[in-house]
Amino acid sequence: MFCRSVILTGGALATILGTAPSAIAQALKDVQTPDTPLVLKAQGSFFVGGEKAEQTQSELGDLGPGGRITVNQMYVRYMVPQGGDGNVPVVMVHGATLTGKSWETTPDGRMGWDEYFVRKGHPIYVPDQVGRGRSGFNQAVFNNVRAGSSPAATLPRWIRFSDEVVWPNFRFGSKASEPYADSQFPVNAVDELSKQGVPDVSFGGVPTPNPTHKALSDLASQVNGAVLMGHSQSGAFPLAAALLNPAVAKGLVLVEPGGCPSNYTDEQIKTLAALPVLVVFGDHRDTPTGIGIRPSWQLSFESCQALIGRLKAAGGQAEMLNPAERGIRGNSHMIMQDKNNLQIADFILQWIGERVSKPKAAK
Amino acid sequence: MFCRSVILTGGALATILGTAPSAIAQALKDVQTPDTPLVLKAQGSFFVGGEKAEQTQSELGDLGPGGRITVNQMYVRYMVPQGGDGNVPVVMVHGATLTGKSWETTPDGRMGWDEYFVRKGHPIYVPDQVGRGRSGFNQAVFNNVRAGSSPAATLPRWIRFSDEVVWPNFRFGSKASEPYADSQFPVNAVDELSKQGVPDVSFGGVPTPNPTHKALSDLASQVNGAVLMGHSQSGAFPLAAALLNPAVAKGLVLVEPGGCPSNYTDEQIKTLAALPVLVVFGDHRDTPTGIGIRPSWQLSFESCQALIGRLKAAGGQAEMLNPAERGIRGNSHMIMQDKNNLQIADFILQWIGERVSKPKAAK
Repeated sequence: MFCRSVILTGGALATILGTAPSAIAQALKDVQTPDTPLVLKAQGSFFVGGEKAEQTQSELGDLGPGGRITVNQMYVRYMVPQGGDGNVPVVMVHGATLTGKSWETTPDGRMGWDEYFVRKGHPIYVPDQVGRGRSGFNQAVFNNVRAGSSPAATLPRWIRFSDEVVWPNFRFGSKASEPYADSQFPVNAVDELSKQGVPDVSFGGVPTPNPTHKALSDLASQVNGAVLMGHSQSGAFPLAAALLNPAVAKGLVLVEPGGCPSNYTDEQIKTLAALPVLVVFGDHRDTPTGIGIRPSWQLSFESCQALIGRLKAAGGQAEMLNPAERGIRGNSHMIMQDKNNLQIADFILQWIGERVSKPKAAK
Repeated sequence: MFCRSVILTGGALATILGTAPSAIAQALKDVQTPDTPLVLKAQGSFFVGGEKAEQTQSELGDLGPGGRITVNQMYVRYMVPQGGDGNVPVVMVHGATLTGKSWETTPDGRMGWDEYFVRKGHPIYVPDQVGRGRSGFNQAVFNNVRAGSSPAATLPRWIRFSDEVVWPNFRFGSKASEPYADSQFPVNAVDELSKQGVPDVSFGGVPTPNPTHKALSDLASQVNGAVLMGHSQSGAFPLAAALLNPAVAKGLVLVEPGGCPSNYTDEQIKTLAALPVLVVFGDHRDTPTGIGIRPSWQLSFESCQALIGRLKAAGGQAEMLNPAERGIRGNSHMIMQDKNNLQIADFILQWIGERVSKPKAAK
């Protein structure tokens, strides 16, 4: 049996979904322009890490003979504010089925955390996780199956969250198209978030341990220390990176992590307790997610509370930022894109200023 | 028989390649900072196009039930210079096995054309082609083969150019590690270029016609007209986009196109002849490429000369920029990354100023 996907376009889409095709049309018109210019000392991109792999002609897709390519490198885009190059840099890592785009212009066209943190004086570094986006992935196994030299069962799976799953899983509402009354996510632009989705081969298509951990640690080293911020799938990556080289991990910000490890040794806890750690969770965490691997985000929250407890017991500064406790309700899993995203960013910036270092000059 | 790729790391790599592992280590240290700040009215990212696809649980990777996702959307990053928002925007599209990274910081850490064009007053828009980078691809067929519901032969192939093929194909030298004496490519940083490589599913994994054509046309429309610049695989995309909506294609720059179409109707030629067209080709075009689909770039050059001839015969302004004719030798296929990349950019900027429109204010 063939289970082929169906592409819905034009009139068919309008009929089936009951919406005009323009519902998923252009977004540039919605992009807002700030009132004041952004003044950058520098911007650009580079790679961290990467290894050479020797591959066959077939593995390379048959355009030429076999040879070497680079795999497991991590793409990083950066912006350094004028006058801010002495301030602590912030590295922002995205979650599952997403790319560094998560931190850029929001789905409804507002400023992303990347630019906001720069405007607050911090150099920012936005990677694509190894295996995704501009970091690429290792295509050899796919071409081997195509050529019949490997069985189909060797294929790693690609995951994507459906639009319907995103609503409860990202906690915009308990089911699709029914937002919480207090939802902070710009639900009118949810189709723009859908466009941010890319296939994610983390389950089986990326080496273990994930090369992104080491790349983040190396990146922090190259910039002489950084605040490492992860989200969701990468929410706990800052912990893993810090354990590889604690000296360059100036602060760890875990935004809506899928979970916090419960199996750290006392030695590891001691190492992490020496670092400022902030965990950030939004609202409506009891929502059943609709996916098997995680019944609710409340379980993730509780695992992080447990880790915070262990770190504090070891003398650490770990703390939870739970806006609901401050009377700010309705924040979603995509908190960096929520309508109050800059308010949440301000809490994190304040924490960086108090726990890590105050920016020398804010623009 | 299993043909598995071999990952070379650490000592093994040093032994086999005769180089220290650091040869493909960190690149941030090489990234240069400009003397003057970059002042942006706006920067950010958004998507163009995209369609809904209904997919099964298996096609989505089994994390939840079947549902809809967005496919065939095009990611675009942009920068608008302060004072330059009235100037003609330039859209820069990358080539095969590459992403928008092509136009950013060069492999040896110099300024890319993205920032340079902004500093010369032009808003720039840098997409990832549909099917690659932050634009994602349609993963359904891969998961169907994995699940056994589609045969392996339905898999599209992923292509990557090996490091060895890149030397003659991108014309750094006639064979690997033997640069031309006059090569303009920063060959000491060729391993950084290798990291820019990502798997490319254009052969079979992207719809026909390529959705990037329409997305480029729509992007040009959304910014009220743009110069469309393609490179290599996308070198002729500006022509295809212009034919979809000539009114918004203010100028077409074909940088080292894989070839120029020879089958345009007289009507199409008449349409394109009304637009300024510039084709750019580097040196050493007779080099055998080492890959089957294109014996030499001279053939691509000649196909574009033929198109220029047809356009001129129809009253058009089409012209060839061949730096070698101006005494500038050694330019490569990756001309936007060559050591004299800003000199080449100046020729293109001059052409835009003369044939399309002069920037109101250059920074």
